[in-house]
Amino acid sequence: MKTTAKAHANIALVKYWGKRDPTLNLPAVGSISMTLRALTTTTAINFKDEFTRDRLILNGKHAGEKQARRVSKFLDLMREPAGVHTFAEITSENNFPTGAGLASSASGFAALAVAADRALNLNLSPTALSRYARMGSGSAARSIFGGFVEMHRGEKPDGSDAVAEPLFDANYWPLEMLILITSEAEKPIGSTEGMNLTAQTSPYYPAWVESSINDLAEMRDAITRRDFEKLGEIAEFSCFKMHGLAMSANPALIYWNELTVKLIAEVRRLRKQGTPAYVTIDAGPQVKVICPPGESDSLMTHFSKFEGIKQVLQSNIGGGARVK
Amino acid sequence: MKTTAKAHANIALVKYWGKRDPTLNLPAVGSISMTLRALTTTTAINFKDEFTRDRLILNGKHAGEKQARRVSKFLDLMREPAGVHTFAEITSENNFPTGAGLASSASGFAALAVAADRALNLNLSPTALSRYARMGSGSAARSIFGGFVEMHRGEKPDGSDAVAEPLFDANYWPLEMLILITSEAEKPIGSTEGMNLTAQTSPYYPAWVESSINDLAEMRDAITRRDFEKLGEIAEFSCFKMHGLAMSANPALIYWNELTVKLIAEVRRLRKQGTPAYVTIDAGPQVKVICPPGESDSLMTHFSKFEGIKQVLQSNIGGGARVK
Repeated sequence: MKTTAKAHANIALVKYWGKRDPTLNLPAVGSISMTLRALTTTTAINFKDEFTRDRLILNGKHAGEKQARRVSKFLDLMREPAGVHTFAEITSENNFPTGAGLASSASGFAALAVAADRALNLNLSPTALSRYARMGSGSAARSIFGGFVEMHRGEKPDGSDAVAEPLFDANYWPLEMLILITSEAEKPIGSTEGMNLTAQTSPYYPAWVESSINDLAEMRDAITRRDFEKLGEIAEFSCFKMHGLAMSANPALIYWNELTVKLIAEVRRLRKQGTPAYVTIDAGPQVKVICPPGESDSLMTHFSKFEGIKQVLQSNIGGGARVK
Repeated sequence: MKTTAKAHANIALVKYWGKRDPTLNLPAVGSISMTLRALTTTTAINFKDEFTRDRLILNGKHAGEKQARRVSKFLDLMREPAGVHTFAEITSENNFPTGAGLASSASGFAALAVAADRALNLNLSPTALSRYARMGSGSAARSIFGGFVEMHRGEKPDGSDAVAEPLFDANYWPLEMLILITSEAEKPIGSTEGMNLTAQTSPYYPAWVESSINDLAEMRDAITRRDFEKLGEIAEFSCFKMHGLAMSANPALIYWNELTVKLIAEVRRLRKQGTPAYVTIDAGPQVKVICPPGESDSLMTHFSKFEGIKQVLQSNIGGGARVK
């Protein structure tokens, strides 16, 4: 029997960088994100006795060995409590462009966790699903929920408290986001590798971990008070602290390209002129623009004409992973 | 009687960022630089009883009020021990393009200190000259000397030990440098203001200060052993740590433009192909390329054709401030 689930991408406003336990994939810092309604992964899973191994089809193509192994290992974690030993075929489709440099692992592992839970009759709580999703990909824990989501760093060595929690749903404050795709090339260094290098070589790493606690508190407060300026300022502070941290690794991790820098300056210029917009950037060159409700259309028009941008994606906050 | 002195620009390989005492202009960190033979400031000073105030002429034009006051205040420091109360006319010329975003304050205050010392018959030692130059501009303390120079942070509250010291002269290891001018616009935030904002808002600031001690030790060692790869690696580590630090200020200080990022990537690309070259970047968008002896000519050819670069300056290590 085939089970299908859908989950949404999310973008961190207070950034996640660093693992306190690489094996259990436990974050060194908490994070706060907004889930994006328009960006989805739909994943179908089908367990069959006759399969001799798991099969992974991503966007219509057989996945590479490395990705397939990662998904198999993840499925093992959920097969175990279910007492299931059969293999599965997993078919996963993103509605957003692959190769756009957007992490599909967040929505991907969230959708997979929800689909596998149903298919294996585990009936896990959303919190438990978030815990499983985290083991697939740190940011996937947040994509279990819609709206504003906080990922807890947790303190326990077994990671049971390293889970995401919904803060406010999308209706509470329907923020919008543009994703400005500046490059469709694959990033040279993945997040996990980058996080490890940073933790091992950057003298700023302890201060990054410690200072995140205050960012989280201030971001919670800004969302609670629907204070857009405050939210934007903390989001940029967290984002540039993360990139400054990565840059202080040895050798330096520089995720930006020419257009990234140009777009940061452009958003600052627009803001000086009164446009409410702030940037956030993940471990790649794409620039995400955070907008108040109703503001993304005019910015969409502005950036669609901006030289060099490959593509602009637009989304409201929303989402939440669920069985289809 | 007119006294003329000449001093050279210098570029820090281990960066200076942050003041332990803003009033005395004492650095929070030591730094190591190379003085550049080709980039000079020539300064003439003429004390005359009939002058009713100091006059400053920079590159043939009367200087603005702010610059004139800064120079007058500096001259007061040297007039005092000389027991001189007359005003002076100061004429200063850079042989490198103004508005090129290159700090002319280092060579400027070094040349002024040397010229004023002679004109006022102070007969200061080079170390004392360096101490005075520092009060004009932190990096000017290094421009008193040629070759490889270390600026000491110092520990004393009066700043008497915050002076530069020559490490090796230019002949010991005749490194070369290219300065790629990416923009001739004035930088939006000056170094002093940027340093203050960083110290006040960046959670990374204490780690920056602490980690610089090791960079200095490793750089001294790399120069002593004439190990170019090591020198380049530490220079980039220090440079990107400084920019990562600035980026972690609130609001973020971003000194780079599009071309800065492109040129960092280009130097990394060239290095992968075997070209020995490393970058360093100060509080602005220009990219300095550090090269081993004899290597800058071919890189000059390469970058002269590079799209968007306004100008390329080339220099050997050398210099040392002196009366002309």
